[in-house]
Amino acid sequence: MLRQFGTTLEIETRGRGLVEITKAVRRWIEPLGVGSGALTLFVRHTSASLLVQENADPEVQSDLERFFARLVPDGDPLLRHRDEGPDDMPAHIRAALTAVQLTVPIAEGRLVLGTWQGLYLWEHRTRPHRRQIALHLIGE
Amino acid sequence: MLRQFGTTLEIETRGRGLVEITKAVRRWIEPLGVGSGALTLFVRHTSASLLVQENADPEVQSDLERFFARLVPDGDPLLRHRDEGPDDMPAHIRAALTAVQLTVPIAEGRLVLGTWQGLYLWEHRTRPHRRQIALHLIGE
Amino acid sequence: MLRQFGTTLEIETRGRGLVEITKAVRRWIEPLGVGSGALTLFVRHTSASLLVQENADPEVQSDLERFFARLVPDGDPLLRHRDEGPDDMPAHIRAALTAVQLTVPIAEGRLVLGTWQGLYLWEHRTRPHRRQIALHLIGE
Repeated sequence: MLRQFGTTLEIETRGRGLVEITKAVRRWIEPLGVGSGALTLFVRHTSASLLVQENADPEVQSDLERFFARLVPDGDPLLRHRDEGPDDMPAHIRAALTAVQLTVPIAEGRLVLGTWQGLYLWEHRTRPHRRQIALHLIGE
Repeated sequence: MLRQFGTTLEIETRGRGLVEITKAVRRWIEPLGVGSGALTLFVRHTSASLLVQENADPEVQSDLERFFARLVPDGDPLLRHRDEGPDDMPAHIRAALTAVQLTVPIAEGRLVLGTWQGLYLWEHRTRPHRRQIALHLIGE
Repeated sequence: MLRQFGTTLEIETRGRGLVEITKAVRRWIEPLGVGSGALTLFVRHTSASLLVQENADPEVQSDLERFFARLVPDGDPLLRHRDEGPDDMPAHIRAALTAVQLTVPIAEGRLVLGTWQGLYLWEHRTRPHRRQIALHLIGE
């Protein structure tokens, strides 16, 4: 019979960059004994996002940062909202350009991530933050 | 017992810009009496999108517009599809760069939006349009 | 009564570009006899994505390619990860800028796509690939 489950994941970031959350997510899912279903992740902030990316080569992560730092530069004179500093508005724009929510199907008791896929929280602010990700799982 | 509900939200836009839809969405959800579940929003157009953003400082919204106007300029000579004017293809590109669908978990009878998060429809065309957002709610 | 269904769609791409998958998705859904529900698509790769876009004018698709080729140029000297060639890291960045997952509500036995909307797999690598899209459907 279909059932649903929910929780909130708390993640400490060390400032701008990716934090892999695949293991933390799996740790919550596995004891629930769900064979098939769908997991939704939703980040409760407007300056962080969720990313599915390659978990093999760390250069992928530094290239992502370099690309976004050039595309949405801190302190860009075009941007006026800077209540919390030169990285404030760029963080909102990075969040708009990426994803704040992901739904991943579950089959045979596992998230259907591809071989090279990991789940990441992407911190867009330069300072460390405590971030919340709401999780919702439906399945049987 | 798990149940599901669906509707279509109709939103009038005043041309390019964000229209907050958080209240309209809550007005539909609340009478359904769902304590926990997941709400999916899907925009039925290829030149508008959905955004979760800060609902406090209006400068965040004007900065978002300024940034996207520079990133995807109207009348860009690179772009050939302009059946409906110089903002036609840029609107499709903005939709591709942002989200056309969002799923937000519900816990304790409320959308799990963070303190500063609001739900927005983002109109990418310069003229006003009537837009449809399909809503699907599953929960109990 | 609510039920769920899952499968994996295999799609051959011909290198960079959009492959419409609307019909393939409908072919899987229709025999299941679901009147209302929600379909989730999840691409199991880090260099391809999912797009909802206009299915009428093919120039929309070539403009999308031209725009992304300028925004994330192959062989960009800023990027170091190029194990699989000059289109390797740009493909990851394109995937981060677009969507790897979509959820589309179903009402009256049909996906609630707008008149001009089609579902596409977006191949970001220049060479042909065999891609997997996990599908999950919940409904009744």
